[in-house]
Amino acid sequence: MKVDPKQLDTLLHPAFEPKALKAAVPIAKGLPASPGAATGRIYFTAEEAVEAAKGGEKKIILVRMETSPEDIEGMHVSQGILTGRGGMTSHAAVVARGMGTCCVAGCSEIRINEEEKYFIDKSGKKYVEGDWISLDGSTGNVYGEQLPTTEPDVTGDFATLMEWADEIRKLRVRTNADTPRDAAVAMKFGAEGIGLCRTEHMFFDPDRIPAMREMIVARTEEQRRKALDKLLPMQRADFEGLFTEMKGYPVTIRLLDPPLHEFLPQEDEDIEALAKEMGISFEDLKAVVKDLHEFNPMMGHRGCRLAVTYPEIAEMQTRAIIEAAINVNKKGMNVIPEIMIPLVGEVKELKYVKEVVVKTADEVIAQSGVKLEYKVGTMIEIPRAAITADEIAKEAEFFSFGTNDLTQMTFGFSRDDAGKFLEEYYNKKIYEFDPFAKLDQHGVGKLIEIASKLGRETRPDIKLGICGEHGGDPSSIEFCHKLGLNYVSCSPYRVPIARLAAAQAAVGGAGLGQK
Amino acid sequence: MKVDPKQLDTLLHPAFEPKALKAAVPIAKGLPASPGAATGRIYFTAEEAVEAAKGGEKKIILVRMETSPEDIEGMHVSQGILTGRGGMTSHAAVVARGMGTCCVAGCSEIRINEEEKYFIDKSGKKYVEGDWISLDGSTGNVYGEQLPTTEPDVTGDFATLMEWADEIRKLRVRTNADTPRDAAVAMKFGAEGIGLCRTEHMFFDPDRIPAMREMIVARTEEQRRKALDKLLPMQRADFEGLFTEMKGYPVTIRLLDPPLHEFLPQEDEDIEALAKEMGISFEDLKAVVKDLHEFNPMMGHRGCRLAVTYPEIAEMQTRAIIEAAINVNKKGMNVIPEIMIPLVGEVKELKYVKEVVVKTADEVIAQSGVKLEYKVGTMIEIPRAAITADEIAKEAEFFSFGTNDLTQMTFGFSRDDAGKFLEEYYNKKIYEFDPFAKLDQHGVGKLIEIASKLGRETRPDIKLGICGEHGGDPSSIEFCHKLGLNYVSCSPYRVPIARLAAAQAAVGGAGLGQK
Repeated sequence: MKVDPKQLDTLLHPAFEPKALKAAVPIAKGLPASPGAATGRIYFTAEEAVEAAKGGEKKIILVRMETSPEDIEGMHVSQGILTGRGGMTSHAAVVARGMGTCCVAGCSEIRINEEEKYFIDKSGKKYVEGDWISLDGSTGNVYGEQLPTTEPDVTGDFATLMEWADEIRKLRVRTNADTPRDAAVAMKFGAEGIGLCRTEHMFFDPDRIPAMREMIVARTEEQRRKALDKLLPMQRADFEGLFTEMKGYPVTIRLLDPPLHEFLPQEDEDIEALAKEMGISFEDLKAVVKDLHEFNPMMGHRGCRLAVTYPEIAEMQTRAIIEAAINVNKKGMNVIPEIMIPLVGEVKELKYVKEVVVKTADEVIAQSGVKLEYKVGTMIEIPRAAITADEIAKEAEFFSFGTNDLTQMTFGFSRDDAGKFLEEYYNKKIYEFDPFAKLDQHGVGKLIEIASKLGRETRPDIKLGICGEHGGDPSSIEFCHKLGLNYVSCSPYRVPIARLAAAQAAVGGAGLGQK
Repeated sequence: MKVDPKQLDTLLHPAFEPKALKAAVPIAKGLPASPGAATGRIYFTAEEAVEAAKGGEKKIILVRMETSPEDIEGMHVSQGILTGRGGMTSHAAVVARGMGTCCVAGCSEIRINEEEKYFIDKSGKKYVEGDWISLDGSTGNVYGEQLPTTEPDVTGDFATLMEWADEIRKLRVRTNADTPRDAAVAMKFGAEGIGLCRTEHMFFDPDRIPAMREMIVARTEEQRRKALDKLLPMQRADFEGLFTEMKGYPVTIRLLDPPLHEFLPQEDEDIEALAKEMGISFEDLKAVVKDLHEFNPMMGHRGCRLAVTYPEIAEMQTRAIIEAAINVNKKGMNVIPEIMIPLVGEVKELKYVKEVVVKTADEVIAQSGVKLEYKVGTMIEIPRAAITADEIAKEAEFFSFGTNDLTQMTFGFSRDDAGKFLEEYYNKKIYEFDPFAKLDQHGVGKLIEIASKLGRETRPDIKLGICGEHGGDPSSIEFCHKLGLNYVSCSPYRVPIARLAAAQAAVGGAGLGQK
């Protein structure tokens, strides 16, 4: 009880050498978005970071105004990420925490010029590609020089503490992981399953995005199915990798969630280039982009709404999941995949998509001649789903509370935009914490409580978990324990934190970190 | 009970001569967005419609891909409005219903070229500015010719029916009105107050938008106050007009609600022109536009969030409301203004803005030396407000359910985007009706029920009303009656419908229109 779970962060990430750190003077301060220390040469695009890594560069700091899914590879090769815009739950922050990579986000004290590839600090000093900087992801400090770092040093005491935690905690701890690499890290940290595998992250890979785009610009179901057929073996291989890595622990896979326009470029220049690459006219591709434009994409054509419009996407993904499970089980494993349908607000839409999933799964299983168990459940991330959870539970074998979206919809503000005005809310003491980092037990939590109660009334053995960012936050974990949820799911590097926080909740009080 | 309330629509609007209508063949069909019949010459921009009206043209049909607040004046001078895109709750549809103007919306069967000012019908025939067309807002039919219309003919029987309705109904019926003109129409139709006056509509007026824009680009509070000072007398005059028209009936005025970028142009060309007009540099104005850009404006910096950031806006609006009430009361009226704070999700934010309002109001009253009663309340349009309504009611003297936004947030879809995928939901019988037109009693209604119960627990005499589009829908009105709300508020032309529907609900069953 004397250990603040968040302290574990410093045990698991590199740090600066204390002497060097003490002597250094920060050139700017941003948000401490993902813990650890990093030193390296700066690059201003993901592509150049990847090129540098291929050329043998081992110390890379990616500097961007903000990151997007297309930057993933560049983020993977970087030791640290620095952004000029965005909060603790911006793309850069969330992805970096998931990767365990040091990140300072929303550093508005430096002026970044992405086009001309430089940034200027407060004193007017200019930094260009290849210059050394250092980031402290635990404080948000940025240093204009190379600082020596020390590697994390986990001793046997850490394992002992974790054992004690595991003995006493009631909550299971799963991880949010999209790749075997993330899964392996999480397993090392003691994860007991995957609570959220976001399948769309697999489609942003440069090898795959062409087939995804082909699917999106298809004008007929036939064309769409042809493109989906190309994606099928890739998805199947992804899931085989994940299942193998997870060694029979439960794996919850969420069907495609983001709006389709995220897979297409938005600027004319990029549309032109892609059209050429795809062998279609600029006008045709531009028309698709225009047609997919949404005023409020967060509340747009995404989640299960995609599967209602294009059931063939859900079919392909189900087939990939089931075939992967069958293949892996043939090698002696015992995988029971959990297929999760996102963004449900009404039981009939869940029923419709579930029927597509079950029909496909049962056909694949019948054809294979082997037996396979699988579960179908849903995210609870829309207020209407929470207040009609008794009906939703008729169709769902499990609920996973998607508290990122549920927080957005319950408060009625978008996490991409809220940073601008929330600052004033903290200054004026209207909010005392960031509801995206720490669960708003009073509002969002009330909906979770209602949904848990209603869900159990219909299906007493319903499995309940949480897979939003809150799954790694100690005070939110305590709340989940009190509600009697079955598990929390968090990013790999937060698994030890969650194990300790869950144990402290079970001891019956708040540890240091939960005050 | 034998009269379908919606039938009253046909009594209150122009119709086509039956013989001519029978002989005519429609060239296209869109959504019957606002009832009535209109015939006129087509214009493709609001400005040209206004010009034509000034030139003496009496029969104008405005044809647009979609309308925006800047088109208001052009819509006012038109007899009918035809849009190529948008649903029953698009801007054109909502505003047209409010004005009682015939509207066919989302008519995708014609291809509109706004730049070159023509449209082409299914047969390939081209229509240019000045050509005659006719619209049937009750069926959605579009005719490529001039059709004779007949004026509405309301007999004494109508008044008798309304009297019977008024004797029996329990719900009061208010109107949504932003101008004395709308208020006068509503009073003629029997409105018993204004349930929603949207103050932002007053700022889009060409005379006023310059001061509004000056306020938005202001860099200091002082500059902002200077611009607000220019707006003050205009707002005060607006409210004096409204109060005078409403003859002492209650008037609920909502503080500024939309995100500020709605008041600025978005295209470089227009920004350039405006910058010149305002005497600032293109770069400076462009920076403001960029800074105000939001990924999800529906969930962005709007509603009371504006007042938290810029309390001086709420101050100016409060001053205008209170001064107007004092001035009108000096002439012998007895106005008790109701100031409504929008988009509240947490009691502390309501408390913060309310303090600004009360401080300003009390100062103005004290300075004037007269007595004035006023009320401060809130919209319930965010799920979190509904589930924490017991706390919200500590600060709010009334709740008005903003069911347009509440529906958006509860379902998690944006009304601007949902049209694209909801069609498939109707085809697949997932939804059986448009939740923006008819209240979703099961989900959104449950939140209203929870909020009403919690609100009354804290403040037994709290006044409860509804001011979304649903306030004019018979089945939704029946629901409001059952919950024991105090009033419904709807667009002026729907007031008689609401009076009849409220009476049928009180009789204890559903009339024809509520089946």
